[in-house]
Amino acid sequence: MFIHSTKLRVRYAETDQMGYMYYGNYAQFYEVGRVEMLRSLGMSYKSMEESGIIMPVLDLKCKFIKPALYDEEITVKVIIAKLPSVRIHFQYELYNESGDLINIGETTLVFVDIKRNKPCMPSEDFLNRLKIFFN
Amino acid sequence: MFIHSTKLRVRYAETDQMGYMYYGNYAQFYEVGRVEMLRSLGMSYKSMEESGIIMPVLDLKCKFIKPALYDEEITVKVIIAKLPSVRIHFQYELYNESGDLINIGETTLVFVDIKRNKPCMPSEDFLNRLKIFFN
Amino acid sequence: MFIHSTKLRVRYAETDQMGYMYYGNYAQFYEVGRVEMLRSLGMSYKSMEESGIIMPVLDLKCKFIKPALYDEEITVKVIIAKLPSVRIHFQYELYNESGDLINIGETTLVFVDIKRNKPCMPSEDFLNRLKIFFN
Amino acid sequence: MFIHSTKLRVRYAETDQMGYMYYGNYAQFYEVGRVEMLRSLGMSYKSMEESGIIMPVLDLKCKFIKPALYDEEITVKVIIAKLPSVRIHFQYELYNESGDLINIGETTLVFVDIKRNKPCMPSEDFLNRLKIFFN
Repeated sequence: MFIHSTKLRVRYAETDQMGYMYYGNYAQFYEVGRVEMLRSLGMSYKSMEESGIIMPVLDLKCKFIKPALYDEEITVKVIIAKLPSVRIHFQYELYNESGDLINIGETTLVFVDIKRNKPCMPSEDFLNRLKIFFN
Repeated sequence: MFIHSTKLRVRYAETDQMGYMYYGNYAQFYEVGRVEMLRSLGMSYKSMEESGIIMPVLDLKCKFIKPALYDEEITVKVIIAKLPSVRIHFQYELYNESGDLINIGETTLVFVDIKRNKPCMPSEDFLNRLKIFFN
Repeated sequence: MFIHSTKLRVRYAETDQMGYMYYGNYAQFYEVGRVEMLRSLGMSYKSMEESGIIMPVLDLKCKFIKPALYDEEITVKVIIAKLPSVRIHFQYELYNESGDLINIGETTLVFVDIKRNKPCMPSEDFLNRLKIFFN
Repeated sequence: MFIHSTKLRVRYAETDQMGYMYYGNYAQFYEVGRVEMLRSLGMSYKSMEESGIIMPVLDLKCKFIKPALYDEEITVKVIIAKLPSVRIHFQYELYNESGDLINIGETTLVFVDIKRNKPCMPSEDFLNRLKIFFN
């Protein structure tokens, strides 16, 4: 199991007139969580794309428990519970500054070889970096 | 069962560098679908809020089948399969211009009385307008 | 002088906790205005990109006179006052449902040949379609 | 003159299919720059709103020199060149990781007393914190 946390502040742009973070913007928080998780492993999604592999999202689930409010620093906890193959599954837990669990989410992404436009396995390098956390 | 469809074009702003509509933006398409569905019933979400009832989202699910591409006119089909009580459940089907089903989604929203900050039933008026479609 | 108007409704996603449309979202309204103006001339920005010409934005100005509010149908008036050369200048006037001028804006875009990565003239076809309005 | 810098990474959500950060998203970078500038002074825009003062934007100017690209860490430099009165003027300079100036911007905001719905002076406290930088 691999767990990584990132902190991210709610922008004014991300609130709506209910005073909550708009429900569609959590997907961006998940994205930042995923990308920073990769970076913590010494990888970057940017360089993965440059090497010819993109990772489109197959599904997204969010459960909204409490609202994320303007200017709150949200902790985005990202969990990989299973070593990826062609697909990779992420779970998310968001906590506000009081430590309340405010949101949980899940996404499945697929590795796609751009040239062949076909699903593919992630690089050996990526798998090796992850494997350390799965004994 | 109540079904309503709205057409919506993918903006450049909504694409990402993969050339797809960003996965977080489907939530906005669902929102527009819901709001236009209400309008087709002679209701407006705006006036509901002005009358003291807001509708926060409790959960969101999206399944991405094919990408929505820039400038495509997407048909957002919204389905209410069950008369709402304190909660209301929406299903979404998105179709591109070729008629392909590209995305399916679901959201649950809750009616909240702002003054009491408690879940509440939707207005009689709203229920009556919906009931016609559920025999 | 070429003038074209498009109507566009403010989404919940586009509001902020002030209850106004967020100031960064007007740029999207301008984009939709520009694209629909092109479509009214029988052109599409999408096909322009497919033919190898992109149009990055060089500058943007917005003046916020009154807020655009949730669910208001905004009229986006786009004005081309001068035939384009390598650059094209657009002016925008936004009106709310009461007919109040709520926002004025300007953008300059440049035609860029993707292959050569250099500024270029717009197509003869585009210029011919525009010229009719400039006598 | 008061100068403050914040670093901010371009999200995938913020790119468009041109591979650039979408031109409407710079306004969010300016917002984050302003808010972090306030925080560096021991103020918060959130508490200003809670005390009954909002700051709507009156005008916005952006000049796009080079694109901000996905995953680049952008330095947002915010400059207040003149002590505010009822209005406050901000200038922005954005730099990419190579140190290139990629974008310059300006915004004017107005302090508004929510109860009276009228422009007002900023708090003495805010002015005193700023004055130190203006001799």
